[in-house]
Amino acid sequence: MAKEPKQLDELFHDTLKDIYYAEKKILSALPKMAKAAQNDDLRAAFEKHHTETEGQIERLEQVFELIEEKAQGKKCAAIEGILEEGQEIIKEFKGSPALDAGLVSAAQAVEHYEIARYGTLRTWAEELGLDDAKDLLQETLDQEEATDQALTELAETVVNQEGRAEAA
Amino acid sequence: MAKEPKQLDELFHDTLKDIYYAEKKILSALPKMAKAAQNDDLRAAFEKHHTETEGQIERLEQVFELIEEKAQGKKCAAIEGILEEGQEIIKEFKGSPALDAGLVSAAQAVEHYEIARYGTLRTWAEELGLDDAKDLLQETLDQEEATDQALTELAETVVNQEGRAEAA
Repeated sequence: MAKEPKQLDELFHDTLKDIYYAEKKILSALPKMAKAAQNDDLRAAFEKHHTETEGQIERLEQVFELIEEKAQGKKCAAIEGILEEGQEIIKEFKGSPALDAGLVSAAQAVEHYEIARYGTLRTWAEELGLDDAKDLLQETLDQEEATDQALTELAETVVNQEGRAEAA
Repeated sequence: MAKEPKQLDELFHDTLKDIYYAEKKILSALPKMAKAAQNDDLRAAFEKHHTETEGQIERLEQVFELIEEKAQGKKCAAIEGILEEGQEIIKEFKGSPALDAGLVSAAQAVEHYEIARYGTLRTWAEELGLDDAKDLLQETLDQEEATDQALTELAETVVNQEGRAEAA
């Protein structure tokens, strides 16, 4: 007997597992990024986002509860690749005035991955009539967008610093 | 003798190679996504973005010329992971009314990766005084943001269709 094709609720559940895995990976990557940061504001931004990420993981656990599923992750090749590129930057630009610019870039790639996933999940939650889940996902999406905006502002600060360090 | 730490111009060049590799991978993934799409508007969006991607690759080649470097890619683990997840969705949701929703989701993850990278490159081009490169990168960034916006609208259309198909 052929298997029934999977439906939207399963796509929602699969993607929830994907971002849950990703958030946990991000949670362990952030202290390394904070430690590598040279600029104090950038370090503070990573530390702040670490705390926010803990809250985002809790909200995901609430969404799992709402759909009556166990909170569990599923290996996410995308976040592995994105974080791997961040680690390469830390290694290759150690001691360089350009390191902070690279860290911001790595962090923005992470943020944009999350923005894409939460945007999708929020739309699907609405379609599936999961209003409480939709609100939780929207709350995280707003937070990720604010973090990305803060990083864009920091990107300009750290490259300017870098320019001044070179000119000195 | 210790190697000199890499500078912002090298970070710019490395990231340019990363997105050049990514764009070429995206160019070959888009026809598969168009072929898999069930919704005509979604298929048309993938076909349109295929043509846009060709233009984006040409603009990247112009940026390589502006910095007097050979246009060449550098393996990008992030895009490999993102596209791998898209292929899994095509495989797992084949024949499902939820397939199109999954395709939009996969495409938005790609768009957001590009938005992050082009945003960073544009900021660095400005700092490096590469005004012509900055304009080229901004042009692509605007196009990626418009594509993402169009996909967000399609996401709502295709999940509504999916809902109607289930109710029928």
